[in-house]
Amino acid sequence: MRDVFQHEMREVQDRLVEIAELVAESIRNATRAFNESDVSLAETVIQNDQKIDALTVVLDELSIQILARQNPVARDLRIVVSALRISASLERMGDMAEHIAQLARYRFPDKVVPKSLRGTFAEMGRLDVLIAERLVELLRTQEPRVADEIRNQDDEIDELHISVFDKVLGETWKGQAVDTVDATLASRYHERFADHAVSIAKKVQYLVTGDWVPED
Amino acid sequence: MRDVFQHEMREVQDRLVEIAELVAESIRNATRAFNESDVSLAETVIQNDQKIDALTVVLDELSIQILARQNPVARDLRIVVSALRISASLERMGDMAEHIAQLARYRFPDKVVPKSLRGTFAEMGRLDVLIAERLVELLRTQEPRVADEIRNQDDEIDELHISVFDKVLGETWKGQAVDTVDATLASRYHERFADHAVSIAKKVQYLVTGDWVPED
Repeated sequence: MRDVFQHEMREVQDRLVEIAELVAESIRNATRAFNESDVSLAETVIQNDQKIDALTVVLDELSIQILARQNPVARDLRIVVSALRISASLERMGDMAEHIAQLARYRFPDKVVPKSLRGTFAEMGRLDVLIAERLVELLRTQEPRVADEIRNQDDEIDELHISVFDKVLGETWKGQAVDTVDATLASRYHERFADHAVSIAKKVQYLVTGDWVPED
Repeated sequence: MRDVFQHEMREVQDRLVEIAELVAESIRNATRAFNESDVSLAETVIQNDQKIDALTVVLDELSIQILARQNPVARDLRIVVSALRISASLERMGDMAEHIAQLARYRFPDKVVPKSLRGTFAEMGRLDVLIAERLVELLRTQEPRVADEIRNQDDEIDELHISVFDKVLGETWKGQAVDTVDATLASRYHERFADHAVSIAKKVQYLVTGDWVPED
């Protein structure tokens, strides 16, 4: 029984890492599709999201089975509860990547944002990819240092998010309404992607320390 | 021991209803603040959100304690797992109400959206309030009929959400960039508020039937 339990606990952690890797792949492809108007890459992201959704359901079922059969306590209980919470955030990160890819698909063959914003979005995309890669590392190692890096990168994304609005609402903005809508949504999706990563970092902190950090 | 357990299970359900009631109050005030540019009402919503956040933390702690001490199985386990998931969605609904209130505060003394969209947003707000009230009823009664009503109202909101973009991207739109940004964000917040309610309805369905319905 104990062996089964250890094996299942190992599987929970492996599956979290596996889903995070898929999310990292999604955001890599989504930001490339967005920046380069690559519609077939956008399709790949949209397909990939179904896989992410299905894997989070499998992980949730596994977690609930462990709760029902093994009555985990202390750190093991925290791992299982955290897994349920983290899987919900990973699922949403996959959705954000999908939304970014969908914007690329809607506007194809045009690019989603006008020239004056492309540098900003390239940088937001680069940071989102970096955050997703850090997240894989965090779920693998549970190193507090990696959680700090994620928080710092999220701060940078928040600044870029604000700078998008400064540009769109500034005197020099020549965009049509469609550009304004797209820039608003795209910026929001990039920012939310990073927010969910910070939210997962808090959940990993709970896993390690037992202290629950409330959401904002 | 059994009595303590029954009492705690009762408390989980009562606390879910209590938080849902606060969320309903928030969205009622937020949509009024938004439609009538009532900045002091907007402040109330922003304050209220801290209370919602704190109560979800208390509920989560209670749920985890029950898992650790009582080893619930079958339906009791589903209630506790559902409570953890539902509290996360209620927390996000509170955030959406807060975001709507913040838009009202930013634009004060102006209204957030131009005249041509006010009817649409009044209707979206009315539906969000209705959904929040249905949600309180659903968490109290777990009636599948109420879950269906929530899904239908969400469909209506999705249609209004699309109609906002049709208007903003149409020939007759005379709004400035700031109006376009605000309409985009406000519509997204109203729509996401309802999405979270549908997501909770799925979780209640899981609670009642044991079948888990994946997220989109």
